[in-house]
Amino acid sequence: MTSFPARLREAQERAGSVLCVGLDPDPDRLPEAVLHEPSPGEAILAFNRALIDATAEYACAFKLNLAFYEALGREGWRVLKRTREHIPDGTLVIADAKRGDIGNSARFYAHALYDELHADACTVSPYMGADSVQPFLEHAGWAAFVLARTTNDGAADFQERRVDGGEPLYLHVARRASRWSAEASGDAGLVAGATDTEALRALREAAPKLPFLIPGIGAQGGEPRAVMQAASGGPVIVTSSRSIIYAGDGSDFPDAAARQARQFRDVLIA
Amino acid sequence: MTSFPARLREAQERAGSVLCVGLDPDPDRLPEAVLHEPSPGEAILAFNRALIDATAEYACAFKLNLAFYEALGREGWRVLKRTREHIPDGTLVIADAKRGDIGNSARFYAHALYDELHADACTVSPYMGADSVQPFLEHAGWAAFVLARTTNDGAADFQERRVDGGEPLYLHVARRASRWSAEASGDAGLVAGATDTEALRALREAAPKLPFLIPGIGAQGGEPRAVMQAASGGPVIVTSSRSIIYAGDGSDFPDAAARQARQFRDVLIA
Repeated sequence: MTSFPARLREAQERAGSVLCVGLDPDPDRLPEAVLHEPSPGEAILAFNRALIDATAEYACAFKLNLAFYEALGREGWRVLKRTREHIPDGTLVIADAKRGDIGNSARFYAHALYDELHADACTVSPYMGADSVQPFLEHAGWAAFVLARTTNDGAADFQERRVDGGEPLYLHVARRASRWSAEASGDAGLVAGATDTEALRALREAAPKLPFLIPGIGAQGGEPRAVMQAASGGPVIVTSSRSIIYAGDGSDFPDAAARQARQFRDVLIA
Repeated sequence: MTSFPARLREAQERAGSVLCVGLDPDPDRLPEAVLHEPSPGEAILAFNRALIDATAEYACAFKLNLAFYEALGREGWRVLKRTREHIPDGTLVIADAKRGDIGNSARFYAHALYDELHADACTVSPYMGADSVQPFLEHAGWAAFVLARTTNDGAADFQERRVDGGEPLYLHVARRASRWSAEASGDAGLVAGATDTEALRALREAAPKLPFLIPGIGAQGGEPRAVMQAASGGPVIVTSSRSIIYAGDGSDFPDAAARQARQFRDVLIA
């Protein structure tokens, strides 16, 4: 099996892009053009398929945030799976699940995301430590992006606290994730927000080789060129959801999404 | 809506028990008695229903670990929902989901667990801070148990690290959760492992009123009486999964589970 970093490189070269499009479909924000579908799930599926068709050429990956699908209840898994099946070969799929549990639970979550959904990568929470992340690193060719420094206000509550009198917690997480990755068949990456470029730079120093999944450009204020510079030296995926998928709300929403995706691609240059 | 602590008190008085039975059905460990069912999902459902019928009188709550259901793919949600529906009124249901995301994502996760699954409580991860936990505290009558100190080896990686030169991270989490709970319509609780009674005591001091969800007795080594003493002064739910649900592997597995549940109930006395 080709390693995740090699698969990522291939996907990024093919698309000439480090952009990842986040498919976070909020039923209250769907364009009217898909509302004739027979169920909320079908409307979301139509929305996702149109967005994938319109933006795939500008993206190295799509990110599926599981919250938006689980909220559909029983229909959720089918919509998630069908969305995943619509993503073209060679474009990576990241299951944004932020799971964090141990032992068999972690293995079952990994099974659901990798073997059932056929995602290429996922996101995980580090709070429970090594044995909650390692089961997601046992699959050669896949990657688990560990939450390090996020872009929300709450990041200050724990992630930024100084640990053992020294560095902020998020850098400890980055160093541990590096070590776990080196010892595993699969790869670890880091979730590192775009809104604090100093933190990004510190994370890149702490984890020179790890792929970074970077949210927070566009609507949240991260400046694309500054982000690319701060995270340079290792693989980078920059992910944007709302700015792209809600770029338009008319029947031409796919064109609006494509324009925004192309624009991001063009400014996200290493 | 009656508050979660009041509902918990009622459930515990009815059962004369602080025990929660964890339904973590591993397809590889199902007793032969349910293997004639037409699908893995149906086998798990038969297993769960028999366990609920046998142990409900000794338990104030059941805990459903979502990993084991998600691993079933599309069938998972149905099995989860049917299992939940089989749990008698007045016995609480805890969705052990360990979710942790922000904004709309958190709200959609909460919707899935509270409104679609009709759980009475869930577990959440604190790593992303206030705005990842608060959306789970907006529902009066419900509770979100925040991971504080878990029983796994990895707990040492981050939870036990000293923060800002002082207390371990898990106590900071406990104090924040207390504050969030005081400000919210719903209630926060803490997940606090049974294997370290000193940590339990410190957590109780940091969060005198919060309900504790305590895993780690039985197979993992937590001593029931010591645990009850260390956590005393506030509401306590002690949860056990494998020791109960795999107590027997013959066709009499429900009787074996009932015996083990009754035994736990009898030693878990405040």
